[in-house]
Amino acid sequence: MTTTGLPFDDFRELIRNLPGPDERAAQAVRERDAVLTKPAGSLGRLEEIAVWLAAWTGRAKPQVTRPLVAVFAGNHGVTAKGVSPYPSSVTAQMVENFAAGGAAINQMCIAYDLGLKVFDLALDFPTGDITEEAAMDEKTCAATMAFGMEAIAGGTDLLCIGEMGIGNTTIAAAICHGLYGGTAEEWAGPGTGANGEVLKRKVAAVRAAVGLHRSHLKDPLELMRRLGGREIAAMAGAILAARMEKVPVIIDGYVATSAAAILHAANPAAIDHCLFAHVSAEPGHRRVLEKLGKKPLLDLDMRLGEGTGAALAAGIVKAAALCHTGMATFEQAGVSGKAN
Amino acid sequence: MTTTGLPFDDFRELIRNLPGPDERAAQAVRERDAVLTKPAGSLGRLEEIAVWLAAWTGRAKPQVTRPLVAVFAGNHGVTAKGVSPYPSSVTAQMVENFAAGGAAINQMCIAYDLGLKVFDLALDFPTGDITEEAAMDEKTCAATMAFGMEAIAGGTDLLCIGEMGIGNTTIAAAICHGLYGGTAEEWAGPGTGANGEVLKRKVAAVRAAVGLHRSHLKDPLELMRRLGGREIAAMAGAILAARMEKVPVIIDGYVATSAAAILHAANPAAIDHCLFAHVSAEPGHRRVLEKLGKKPLLDLDMRLGEGTGAALAAGIVKAAALCHTGMATFEQAGVSGKAN
Repeated sequence: MTTTGLPFDDFRELIRNLPGPDERAAQAVRERDAVLTKPAGSLGRLEEIAVWLAAWTGRAKPQVTRPLVAVFAGNHGVTAKGVSPYPSSVTAQMVENFAAGGAAINQMCIAYDLGLKVFDLALDFPTGDITEEAAMDEKTCAATMAFGMEAIAGGTDLLCIGEMGIGNTTIAAAICHGLYGGTAEEWAGPGTGANGEVLKRKVAAVRAAVGLHRSHLKDPLELMRRLGGREIAAMAGAILAARMEKVPVIIDGYVATSAAAILHAANPAAIDHCLFAHVSAEPGHRRVLEKLGKKPLLDLDMRLGEGTGAALAAGIVKAAALCHTGMATFEQAGVSGKAN
Repeated sequence: MTTTGLPFDDFRELIRNLPGPDERAAQAVRERDAVLTKPAGSLGRLEEIAVWLAAWTGRAKPQVTRPLVAVFAGNHGVTAKGVSPYPSSVTAQMVENFAAGGAAINQMCIAYDLGLKVFDLALDFPTGDITEEAAMDEKTCAATMAFGMEAIAGGTDLLCIGEMGIGNTTIAAAICHGLYGGTAEEWAGPGTGANGEVLKRKVAAVRAAVGLHRSHLKDPLELMRRLGGREIAAMAGAILAARMEKVPVIIDGYVATSAAAILHAANPAAIDHCLFAHVSAEPGHRRVLEKLGKKPLLDLDMRLGEGTGAALAAGIVKAAALCHTGMATFEQAGVSGKAN
């Protein structure tokens, strides 16, 4: 531990003492699944999802009635290093676009009847440039985590975690490079479309940031405040709050996964209630999912963020819950079972 | 060509003269996609889907307003060889279950607001045992194709093709073995749960069927009447009718893909309007998709049939269409574009 400040103490305690799955509810789903009118196992991952919903909601009858997409938006000092082809002003412009209903995530929420809340995290105050200083002080980081925990205060039974923030795939790459080593090149990809000189600057920034903070990266929360961003801290808080409130979580792409990876580094069980929606086209995402031992649900070559991959996965989770609860049993339907 | 009968003649003519894609509509979608508020390409396969919808509906504004799942149910004489752990009576029982709303596909249709039509294909009259005789005579096969063409008569703008039929993964395996060679073991998998002696009998039946008919398999329609089933013929008809009526098609699993493979063998362009929903857990499915050069949308370890994989894919297609039509452009939203 490299810090002695107080703000993280409650989170350290929380992360050490998270509630586990409800095995009884999970077992009830497994038992009902075995008598539904289909060959055992034939719905594949949809069956696993029904069990997962039961385990983490504690309800033997998996339901998704109030799904919510929470999009956390932040700005990053490291954009001064020219790591993105888009200007930082786009973050706030896209937040306006979310409010106006013009973004991809708005359409996804219509398609699957998902609620949408966008959290504007002090966009006028970018975090520190991680190649030169820590992104945040501990107090700011902890306060942002606490703010993220409020994401679910309005009530939800399935939380989709997404983000928006020009420069934040640089942040995600720095976090992963800091957590898992390797080279900056392995973790920094094109993001929204960085290539040529922009990509070179992005790789250099990731390398420089991890180099600068290298003696302070053993503690995951300390790593987060140094290499992270406000949306990273808020997403970490939201993931923890969901766990406490028995709300299963769907994690979107590379940036959201980097927030989950920080919690995983602090306690590998901390993200057991998280389903990983998809593997992004961003090459680092596949690597971090492998490090976490998580198998993504979808592989659609997407790399937009905003929670769009998580929203697609939520559509599948809703169908999985409906299949489990709505299907007839062999006995109810008068269908003959397996003969041999 | 090994037959000289008339019933197939109209179909041969049809398959040779299918309409192509509407390149103008496709191009209009590509151009609009480039100015939507997201980095170019960042919605990955969803962008391809929007273009595909435009190309095959001829509408520059892709919409899915009347999606339909068509489930074709048939029975198979080859079940007398003990190739399935379930009795043939389950086919009719499951058709009842579909009507009562108790099957997985019913829940999927609720989840994604899809219409559902089930076509009972003379379940009391199983096709001939393909290890001993042809499944159908040419007249029956052609009539069943024509019946399948009626599937879309009620109107739809997205057709999901599914099936139900105890024994029909044996049929699919025989078709693929007949079309692509290899060994019976490569094409016959566990299906609904065949293993041990049942799987051995299934492999033996596939080998015997292809051996018996081997000198008549060059012509795809002849192969279909000999090795196919009523639901195979009906699905082939439905796929063709959809093409003529500018309705894009989503193909479900191994059995539905085997019907598409027959058309592909007759004319490789005949299934250009088809999206392949998922890769089934049934090992032969991955192989036939490779032979067709088709990349499935989903990989969820499913192997139920009923159109369940196609329905999940339809949910994604609906979201893709909404994203394309509902998103704001950079100009509309006042969002800055890429700077460099």
